[in-house]
Amino acid sequence: MYQVKVTPRCPIRTTLELLGGKWKLLILSQLRAEALRTSELKRLIPDISEKMLIQELKFLSDSHLVSRKSFGEVPPRVEYSLTEKGRNSLPLIEEMVVFAEKYEAKTNGSISLDNK
Amino acid sequence: MYQVKVTPRCPIRTTLELLGGKWKLLILSQLRAEALRTSELKRLIPDISEKMLIQELKFLSDSHLVSRKSFGEVPPRVEYSLTEKGRNSLPLIEEMVVFAEKYEAKTNGSISLDNK
Repeated sequence: MYQVKVTPRCPIRTTLELLGGKWKLLILSQLRAEALRTSELKRLIPDISEKMLIQELKFLSDSHLVSRKSFGEVPPRVEYSLTEKGRNSLPLIEEMVVFAEKYEAKTNGSISLDNK
Repeated sequence: MYQVKVTPRCPIRTTLELLGGKWKLLILSQLRAEALRTSELKRLIPDISEKMLIQELKFLSDSHLVSRKSFGEVPPRVEYSLTEKGRNSLPLIEEMVVFAEKYEAKTNGSISLDNK
């Protein structure tokens, strides 16, 4: 990996702007396998508020990471799915999982080392 | 990748807690190649305030992602470097760079498609 030069528009910042915060990566991760309705996303992410979920889905749609499909039914049926660009977040999410697992696996060892 | 189940302690959340926010990943990225002093980090990340930089370095040290080495000199000389756990963030940063590059490369194409 090359050294990232920190500028107002460096790639790390671009990604943080698109995916940063508490919820966006959680939402994208849940759409990995299938399109989901708002109510299904709410069930999968129990502690997100309805208002926040709708706001984050709007941001992700506006950023072309998620596509919103309305079926024109009554009552309204709307499904969200990952776009091709949205799918590009999956390797990043996978690295987040790897990072957390390595972090937690090594915590005990390193703490006992500190206590020597 | 398996489907991540969203819980209060799921791996995505663990990683967001450790690395989330505007600055931590920028700081870690700058330590990739070498140990740096606070003043050098400040020069590499021009828009971070001194107070925020010190606060973030303390958080990263407390999380065992960065190690702080004091040389016991006058004036005080302190250097920060990545721990082994901190180095585990580098593949994640690399994926963030890849994500941003793919995102920006495809934006034009997808917008012109929308205008058809």
